[in-house]
Amino acid sequence: MRIAFLLYDDFTALDAVGPYEVLSRIPGAEVVFTAARRGPVRTDMSLAVTADAELGEVDSADVLLVPGGPGTLAQLSDGPVLEWLRAVDATTTWTTSVCSGSLVLGAAGLLAGRRATSHWACLEELAKFGAEPTGTERIVTDGKYATAAGVSAGIDLALSLTGRLAGDPVAEAIQLLIEYDPQPPYSAGSTATAPAELVARMRANGLAIS
Amino acid sequence: MRIAFLLYDDFTALDAVGPYEVLSRIPGAEVVFTAARRGPVRTDMSLAVTADAELGEVDSADVLLVPGGPGTLAQLSDGPVLEWLRAVDATTTWTTSVCSGSLVLGAAGLLAGRRATSHWACLEELAKFGAEPTGTERIVTDGKYATAAGVSAGIDLALSLTGRLAGDPVAEAIQLLIEYDPQPPYSAGSTATAPAELVARMRANGLAIS
Repeated sequence: MRIAFLLYDDFTALDAVGPYEVLSRIPGAEVVFTAARRGPVRTDMSLAVTADAELGEVDSADVLLVPGGPGTLAQLSDGPVLEWLRAVDATTTWTTSVCSGSLVLGAAGLLAGRRATSHWACLEELAKFGAEPTGTERIVTDGKYATAAGVSAGIDLALSLTGRLAGDPVAEAIQLLIEYDPQPPYSAGSTATAPAELVARMRANGLAIS
Repeated sequence: MRIAFLLYDDFTALDAVGPYEVLSRIPGAEVVFTAARRGPVRTDMSLAVTADAELGEVDSADVLLVPGGPGTLAQLSDGPVLEWLRAVDATTTWTTSVCSGSLVLGAAGLLAGRRATSHWACLEELAKFGAEPTGTERIVTDGKYATAAGVSAGIDLALSLTGRLAGDPVAEAIQLLIEYDPQPPYSAGSTATAPAELVARMRANGLAIS
């Protein structure tokens, strides 16, 4: 089973590394981080992770995952990345995204007429690509397309996919291995539970922290 | 504020990237990934992340974080890494670990007489270093030492630290930004909630998934 991740400059590290930590542990899975060029790819906050393959070296995948981040904006114009996504998508069992990665799938034309989600701050932009923005679920599945909400939602997506790909016992074993028993010390993780003034402030100031 | 991560071969990516995704967003924070040598460091499952500094280039930090993973075993003998940890620890406000990273702090002599936690499968090994293994809390704090349970617990640790370092509103803004509203599709994330036979099987077979 080949699981291909698309990397690009200024993606958000956890969008990819959360799902990777789960999916790479499926027995028999081969994960490949793919980018326009091999080598280190800088994420949005400074960390660099390595792409071990160029786009041209990966022409099929069982699972395709596109992370999000500020760098998605530069990926929305047609070109080699969107062509690659369309070509690999034609071979997948699951095509997936985390956070604003769904905008890239949308720009490739893969979400037209489908329900999908994204980071809360760019959810409505999905409509530009003919998708139906769906903000009430953390993971939205429509056919073989599974899109997750912002950043940390990729861990939940990956556990859910693991259950479908390899069975519930494998997903549970991986959850136990990574001790995924989350206990957030605050309850501000969604626009529904965060203080309303915080949501409004972040929407107004381009997601600045303070 | 300087936040230093120690990297070494065969660490677990999410142990570091989870906390990084939170801590790097604290206004004014500078995160530095540090290893014996600059350049790509391979994690336990294939992904490589880049160390941007050598140990000798980082002689102090406000926060020090040691991730865990199978590679911890090779870090437990005294040498440059443990010397570096002791030297930087002398400068920190918080010295922290995720997963089996606490064994490395223990080997450096930093947890003697302190309550601490680790990945559930190696919790008892903390006693070898004079620490008091504490398996009932996801984050254990004793003085300036904060140790987290396995892998994904680093996200909770980092949000908690962020609140202490920068205030609750900053921690809540970061939680909202990374949409950390976890909804695990299974309840197997701790030894207390996972099926007992799964815990027993993984303990018996060296944590193999199946």
